[in-house]
Amino acid sequence: MTCLVEKEFLNETEYKDVPKKKVDVWRYKPYVCTVKLVNVYTGKKIIILNELEAKEHDMYLGYRTKVKFDSREITALIDVSSEMIKQGEIGIYTEVADELGLKGGEKVELIHMDRPASIQYIRDKLDGKVLSNGAISSIITDLMHNRLGSVELAAWVSAVYMHGLSDQEIVSLTQSIVDSGEKLDLGVKPVCDKHCIGGVAGNRTTMVLVPIIAAAGIHIPKSSSRAITSAAGTADVMELLAPVDLSMEELKRITLRAKGAIIWGGGLNLASADDKLIQIRNPLRLDPEGMLLSSILAKKKAVGATHVVIDIPVGRGSKIEDISKSRSLGEHFIHIGEKGLGMDIEALVTDGSEPVGFGIGVALEARDVLMVLENHNNKIEKGLIFPEDLRHKSCLLAGKLIELCGKAKKDEGYKIAEDLIKSGKALKKLKEIVELQGGDPKISSGDIEIGKYSHTVYATRHGKIHHIDSKTISKLCRLAGAPMDRGAGVYLYKSKGETVRKGDKLFTLYSNSKSKLGFATKALNDLEPIEMRKFILGILD
Amino acid sequence: MTCLVEKEFLNETEYKDVPKKKVDVWRYKPYVCTVKLVNVYTGKKIIILNELEAKEHDMYLGYRTKVKFDSREITALIDVSSEMIKQGEIGIYTEVADELGLKGGEKVELIHMDRPASIQYIRDKLDGKVLSNGAISSIITDLMHNRLGSVELAAWVSAVYMHGLSDQEIVSLTQSIVDSGEKLDLGVKPVCDKHCIGGVAGNRTTMVLVPIIAAAGIHIPKSSSRAITSAAGTADVMELLAPVDLSMEELKRITLRAKGAIIWGGGLNLASADDKLIQIRNPLRLDPEGMLLSSILAKKKAVGATHVVIDIPVGRGSKIEDISKSRSLGEHFIHIGEKGLGMDIEALVTDGSEPVGFGIGVALEARDVLMVLENHNNKIEKGLIFPEDLRHKSCLLAGKLIELCGKAKKDEGYKIAEDLIKSGKALKKLKEIVELQGGDPKISSGDIEIGKYSHTVYATRHGKIHHIDSKTISKLCRLAGAPMDRGAGVYLYKSKGETVRKGDKLFTLYSNSKSKLGFATKALNDLEPIEMRKFILGILD
Repeated sequence: MTCLVEKEFLNETEYKDVPKKKVDVWRYKPYVCTVKLVNVYTGKKIIILNELEAKEHDMYLGYRTKVKFDSREITALIDVSSEMIKQGEIGIYTEVADELGLKGGEKVELIHMDRPASIQYIRDKLDGKVLSNGAISSIITDLMHNRLGSVELAAWVSAVYMHGLSDQEIVSLTQSIVDSGEKLDLGVKPVCDKHCIGGVAGNRTTMVLVPIIAAAGIHIPKSSSRAITSAAGTADVMELLAPVDLSMEELKRITLRAKGAIIWGGGLNLASADDKLIQIRNPLRLDPEGMLLSSILAKKKAVGATHVVIDIPVGRGSKIEDISKSRSLGEHFIHIGEKGLGMDIEALVTDGSEPVGFGIGVALEARDVLMVLENHNNKIEKGLIFPEDLRHKSCLLAGKLIELCGKAKKDEGYKIAEDLIKSGKALKKLKEIVELQGGDPKISSGDIEIGKYSHTVYATRHGKIHHIDSKTISKLCRLAGAPMDRGAGVYLYKSKGETVRKGDKLFTLYSNSKSKLGFATKALNDLEPIEMRKFILGILD
Repeated sequence: MTCLVEKEFLNETEYKDVPKKKVDVWRYKPYVCTVKLVNVYTGKKIIILNELEAKEHDMYLGYRTKVKFDSREITALIDVSSEMIKQGEIGIYTEVADELGLKGGEKVELIHMDRPASIQYIRDKLDGKVLSNGAISSIITDLMHNRLGSVELAAWVSAVYMHGLSDQEIVSLTQSIVDSGEKLDLGVKPVCDKHCIGGVAGNRTTMVLVPIIAAAGIHIPKSSSRAITSAAGTADVMELLAPVDLSMEELKRITLRAKGAIIWGGGLNLASADDKLIQIRNPLRLDPEGMLLSSILAKKKAVGATHVVIDIPVGRGSKIEDISKSRSLGEHFIHIGEKGLGMDIEALVTDGSEPVGFGIGVALEARDVLMVLENHNNKIEKGLIFPEDLRHKSCLLAGKLIELCGKAKKDEGYKIAEDLIKSGKALKKLKEIVELQGGDPKISSGDIEIGKYSHTVYATRHGKIHHIDSKTISKLCRLAGAPMDRGAGVYLYKSKGETVRKGDKLFTLYSNSKSKLGFATKALNDLEPIEMRKFILGILD
């Protein structure tokens, strides 16, 4: 290799002290276009420029630009076209039109963007540095103002995956995410919330827990999600009983009145930045622990929660299969709670190795919930089985939450929760919440409509239930049409460890669509939702 | 924290041996739609589905799907719309329409995608593993088939930034990128190529080097790029003399005939994967060294180069300011060349602390190039200055290349190169190439048209030129309209270190647009392209 510069550089000491000049103002020629609406929802803020005209103004496909209309200004991604958009025109997609209040024909101005400061912070994180509160806040702000694209955000998420987040970064990120969206201030204390890490089918404990907590006189404004990859989300199941797409005002009003509510969080604009981050984390299944914590705790803090219980199911088939990982995650939650977020957090590691309850799917889970609250003590009705594990787990979680708030002494919470079910007060509270949310309080488990077509699977030999796989069951439910088809799903007749005789019912698939039921049934050729083991000694009991 | 599972798990040793079942076939209901064309060029393969219908088929905004028409199948990103696309319809953007040969009204089928294998490899790289040839090849293949989005690719680039690439990974990546595009096989040896890391304004050495090498009887099929952020690219400057948007066939024909050619690489589809990777690296200015090497060497290998010289300019204002970094980069290039790519590589670290030549901008650089080849020995014509540094550097690089090929002994290359200019053979060769490419061989430096409007900046005091900033000069040129306005740019009258008297001409701004010239002139209030220092002792010479 030849190096030709050494000698000159020995004399070049002077320039190292010269500060780099930063030029902020680029005087570009004004770029004004007439709006042409493009009625497509893209999930992003995108505009279309005439390709040639854009180049003349130094703008290119994939870059970002500020778009200004009257006093409003947003940042948008640039698309280009030679045919669809003529010189002097600008194509405006739905989100941009909505945000700027455009109807077509108006004149907007395009202004070149400076490179966002966050890019440097993301590079710092790639270099393994711990980011300051200001840096994290800047990243979330630039994200919300659409100044960072999926490339920049993916780089940051990757950096966090590789280098982790310090406790202070987690607190900072949580607070920034909270500040990126709406907040609920009930003006009372304590305020409770609960979260389950997920991965367990049929695990509808929220819908039993919220009535218990509210009946105990503690406020619990529960915002829940719809199903993403599972058979049903809490919001879907509650929606069978009452409207869930309520506003922040209604959430406040109902919670102050009845002490609790169960609504769909997606309409509330809570922790908005997290939705955008999730879109980045999902394709890669990247869930760096610090980000997972911020994501979960931000939503709790945004509703003003002071006491939170986290359910961490562990076991084969659930999200976390390693018990030591689940413990360290739980400890991490509790630890962050003590670090300045203003929340008392308790974590429970629970058995996630099989579904909770017997019904999986929107209606089937709603029925299990109502059976628990209706207090049917182990009576098998119409071929159904009382979901004791759902009752037990809900009382466990609710009990811990009641103790956490200081409304019960240690280990006394379970009984209080249990008694609120037995006395009928929890059911009464659910009906009160349902009515306030606009539903019919006269609902009962017998009224719930299940899918009209069904297919039952029987045991082909004697044996013992070795494993019931939540993921596989959820996939079957989705093939059958869940969650859009509320009656679609699976009803189990057996639990893990149970003995089975040849000919026993194992489970029934339900659907309101004959063809979808057919697809789900065919899939059973490849799927094994229930694994059985023969008896080792060949003895049946 | 409460842990409720320990006891049960002590008995759960058996399940660890159960292999995870992989289900490959999901029997989804067939999803067929009628094509509706959307004439927008997005740079990606995107389709639009009716939002409700898509959900019923378990497809969502941002996911990917296979789109099948007749025997053709591609992977596309999903957009959704409620208004623009009705049930049973599918919106098809330009790139998809072109690839599948759709005109509107046809029926296409949408097929759910399996998760690409590359996702696991990207996660492996995030975990710091060294990827096998197969894994890297898989990533590039999935990238080319549109199965990976910007999120996944950004994660991989970030992982490479953080963990680096082993030598074998670099060779593997280079080869995969080569295989992703077209290749040129001249059927002769040696084949030369050259690359400059960039960051130096006016550095048009390629246009002097190629005629020299070709005149020396060595094949040099030079594919060059257009300006991206600089004032001019080699392809732009050559285009002033002859068409550059030629096909691979024409490149082969002309190179075999004249020994050399200078064309625009963008039309050739060489190393296609690299264009996509650059779109990911750019927003973050991430150039992990391994990827930079693969990116550069892939394009050389794709044209069949056997001998390559790399110019690494270093100094204040250029891309690399640290001399030890430039040396290690150079060593890295040479080292990789020995590792099985079949190329002999030589690297030169050169002075990048000021522009090369005096003209910056398409026409101004073309003029400097022609002045060198026309052999004007230090005669100042019409207020111009002979660009000695351009001549010298070109002979240096060309000389090294000639030695590398074995066509000259060590340190003899420079003189051979110099003599080919002095004898007029290099100029004759350029004219031959220009004519074969379809241009007018009767071109001379006096014919080059510069911008008709100009603004000259004079020194306001005595002093010494301390620094001429390439980046700032390039920005001024772009404000003046370069490179679209070929006559726009800057002509310098001074070099670094020169003494200046009050009233001396420092530089002239050119443009064919009065308003753009005005903008560039106004920008001089904030920009300092030339830094001057007073004399310390106050003595003028």
